[in-house]
Amino acid sequence: MKKAVTIGIDIGGTNSVLGVVDREGNILAEDRISTTQYPVIGEYVSALYGAVTRALGKVKEEIELQAIGIGAPNGNYYHGTIEHPPNLIWEGVIPLCEMMSQYTDVPVVLTNDANAAALGEMIYGGAREMKNFIIYTLGTGLGSGIVINGEVLYGSTGFAGEIGHIIMVPGGRDCGCGRQGCLETYVSATGIVRTVQELLGQRRDPSPLRKVAAEALTARMITDAAKEGDRIALEAFDRTADMLALSIVNATAFSSPEAIFLFGGLSNAGKYLFEPVEKYVNEKIQTIFKGTVRILPSQIPENNAAILGASALAWKEIEK
Amino acid sequence: MKKAVTIGIDIGGTNSVLGVVDREGNILAEDRISTTQYPVIGEYVSALYGAVTRALGKVKEEIELQAIGIGAPNGNYYHGTIEHPPNLIWEGVIPLCEMMSQYTDVPVVLTNDANAAALGEMIYGGAREMKNFIIYTLGTGLGSGIVINGEVLYGSTGFAGEIGHIIMVPGGRDCGCGRQGCLETYVSATGIVRTVQELLGQRRDPSPLRKVAAEALTARMITDAAKEGDRIALEAFDRTADMLALSIVNATAFSSPEAIFLFGGLSNAGKYLFEPVEKYVNEKIQTIFKGTVRILPSQIPENNAAILGASALAWKEIEK
Repeated sequence: MKKAVTIGIDIGGTNSVLGVVDREGNILAEDRISTTQYPVIGEYVSALYGAVTRALGKVKEEIELQAIGIGAPNGNYYHGTIEHPPNLIWEGVIPLCEMMSQYTDVPVVLTNDANAAALGEMIYGGAREMKNFIIYTLGTGLGSGIVINGEVLYGSTGFAGEIGHIIMVPGGRDCGCGRQGCLETYVSATGIVRTVQELLGQRRDPSPLRKVAAEALTARMITDAAKEGDRIALEAFDRTADMLALSIVNATAFSSPEAIFLFGGLSNAGKYLFEPVEKYVNEKIQTIFKGTVRILPSQIPENNAAILGASALAWKEIEK
Repeated sequence: MKKAVTIGIDIGGTNSVLGVVDREGNILAEDRISTTQYPVIGEYVSALYGAVTRALGKVKEEIELQAIGIGAPNGNYYHGTIEHPPNLIWEGVIPLCEMMSQYTDVPVVLTNDANAAALGEMIYGGAREMKNFIIYTLGTGLGSGIVINGEVLYGSTGFAGEIGHIIMVPGGRDCGCGRQGCLETYVSATGIVRTVQELLGQRRDPSPLRKVAAEALTARMITDAAKEGDRIALEAFDRTADMLALSIVNATAFSSPEAIFLFGGLSNAGKYLFEPVEKYVNEKIQTIFKGTVRILPSQIPENNAAILGASALAWKEIEK
């Protein structure tokens, strides 16, 4: 009997990577193309399908492709489109699923990166037994995927789950979305860098972070400094955790998930983030929800997460 | 052929009212009992079922009871229980559906008041064609019912949809839940009264509201003053609308509803509330969601809303 597989494709600003994935989440083969090399979308789709074919050819076992899942910035699940992506080279609304379907008869489905991460957690990761959870992806920005009754929440537009753009501080930090005070300006790799920059002004503590130019400062440096006991770095984590906890508490009032998963860059800081988040969630949460929400690290390895998430979307689609 | 009907029961702190309701939302008969008169819950349930029987007996047509729906404070849909209700005379967890089922063979279901309001809107009101919407019930407090993909959002605990207890202002106004800065301390009948009290301290404008003792001030008086052009009252509505708009914008980032319905007391202020809410939502909303959310008054008449909402829960249950 042939082994059932799906393809997971992650479209990034620089590269598009893809993998052939079995139902257990083993990546049997991979391939990639440059995203930026194809300014004409038709040529990109042709090259992408070429990479799909190459990857399928690399698998030694007998396999049968079931579906293709795509994770892409500004991906709209309902329409199978990428809509006005600020970090990709194509403009407007790109009907990617339709274009891919000219090359294949299997279902092609698409969603955004954070929703794909939620699906990866649900199909292969720590949320396999869960029906209601939220994943926060803490990278350059803050993405979120919300699962309600076992389904990703898309809402009426297909764009639900933008927790990173919930306004936490009216009139607060400038956000890339053109507004102020969005969660991701505080809770993300860039958010904690901004917090350190503010703290360097507010505090007089000596810190190795004072030797780094503002532009060169990274979340990784802040994590390393925290591990050395640097007070500025520790306070930055504390403030980040405080704001993240407020978001978790408010999300719980909204949808009452059984768990919050933290994924990506900043979540690798481990106890420097998780311990104060736990503390502040316990302090802030409404009595009725006390003890009902676990804060967990994602169980999906970060280097494979994008491909696994996209392939999980494909499995979810055919198992509906 | 007998006409199919459901019973809708609204359990309030003082009275429990119920109605026999057909599928179109016509209330064919009503009855009521005192809630406070029965400190022993078994006696209350017996009396309540007596009222159900009386109401059914008042209907002249031939009818067939399909299900009983109950709206109650702290009602848990999953368990059919009322859990630790602060404003009712019984303590602990009350298995009301189970107790009612000793008297009847039809399904008995229960939820909280705001979820019942959402169901009323979906079955009989302005949300009949909608799959994703939120209702804000603006009474003494602020309740909310969230509908996702045509289903009320209960979350992992059964208590999802507590938008009134989302913390909008960390360290802000004291809330009855024991925390500070919850939405309902700003946006509700009592919230706007508190806003007026603050404004009376901050502003020097003359106002008829200065003649009223703090304890005696009501949302109705503020609405009346706004209609007369009173600047304190108008600014209080503006601030209330500003905070409500922020909540709507943030809820949209979360679940992307197609409409927000405003129901109850404060929403009767009409244009004094709706116009600034519209304005602030347009100002604050993320570009991707512009024009996707309508702000609408509830289409359910307020005096019948509780019975209709509870009966809608019953219809929803048997039509699943």
